[in-house]
Amino acid sequence: MQRVTNCILLNEDKVLLLKKPRRGWYAIPGGKMEQGETIKESAVREYQEETELELTDPELGGIFTFLIYSGRTIVQEWMMFTFFCRSFTGKLAGYCREGELEWVTFDAIRTLPMAEGDRKIFEHLLVSNKTLYGSFSYTEDYNLINYRLDPSSPCRGEMYRAK
Amino acid sequence: MQRVTNCILLNEDKVLLLKKPRRGWYAIPGGKMEQGETIKESAVREYQEETELELTDPELGGIFTFLIYSGRTIVQEWMMFTFFCRSFTGKLAGYCREGELEWVTFDAIRTLPMAEGDRKIFEHLLVSNKTLYGSFSYTEDYNLINYRLDPSSPCRGEMYRAK
Repeated sequence: MQRVTNCILLNEDKVLLLKKPRRGWYAIPGGKMEQGETIKESAVREYQEETELELTDPELGGIFTFLIYSGRTIVQEWMMFTFFCRSFTGKLAGYCREGELEWVTFDAIRTLPMAEGDRKIFEHLLVSNKTLYGSFSYTEDYNLINYRLDPSSPCRGEMYRAK
Repeated sequence: MQRVTNCILLNEDKVLLLKKPRRGWYAIPGGKMEQGETIKESAVREYQEETELELTDPELGGIFTFLIYSGRTIVQEWMMFTFFCRSFTGKLAGYCREGELEWVTFDAIRTLPMAEGDRKIFEHLLVSNKTLYGSFSYTEDYNLINYRLDPSSPCRGEMYRAK
């Protein structure tokens, strides 16, 4: 089973995203866990490898289960651990082999091309400070079939996380 | 990859544990995730199946990576998601097919037979309210070879979780 860790890094009103060349979709920087790592070790290592930035005190924001369907058959299941961070050291990489790194405003996230499930994750994690649990079903072409999130709607009554 | 969810349920100064027949070791009630579940759905379902109690608002306490060694070879890797909960509904099962359910005092946890890694997890999770990340290496006989935890020592300065 593939396990992916990534991190939403905030800097004032912007988030660092990775524009991937294949579809031009924006993604949260991160990558695959290695054997024996904790999820936090993996998130910090992967972030450093992709961006050359070192995360300071990332906190777990959400844990997600993904099912990939080919027709009615589940062909893959994987998990994603998404951290949240407001502080970093280092200078952003001039080049990233995975795609283009770009600081993006919160407003732009509503309209940028990305996996629909990722947009839903942003809707929650930029607003609420409650741990988010989710399960997403996608086609092999990465069309979102269905999903559920807990809490089911962003907790706007709580601290505005991305302030 | 096996994924296990479980929950430390508190009731005043006691924790509900499961005494497993094989070694007589005490364990945190829980079990294997099913395909497509969120980790929280799995924790609630597994707890209900083993104890007949329904957890109210369990919160994630820690995420752990386990490596099992046969000599110098890694023969298994699995993950454990441990929740924490103070409130439940329902009546404790009179019978559990996995072992004996027992309310145990915090003090007893120091000396009861259990996996050494589980004892370390308790040392942290009963005291600190910070999410705990860990990686444990065990032999196939479940002797702890080494481990690391983040934070590395319980944050006693913070809220005493098990108050």
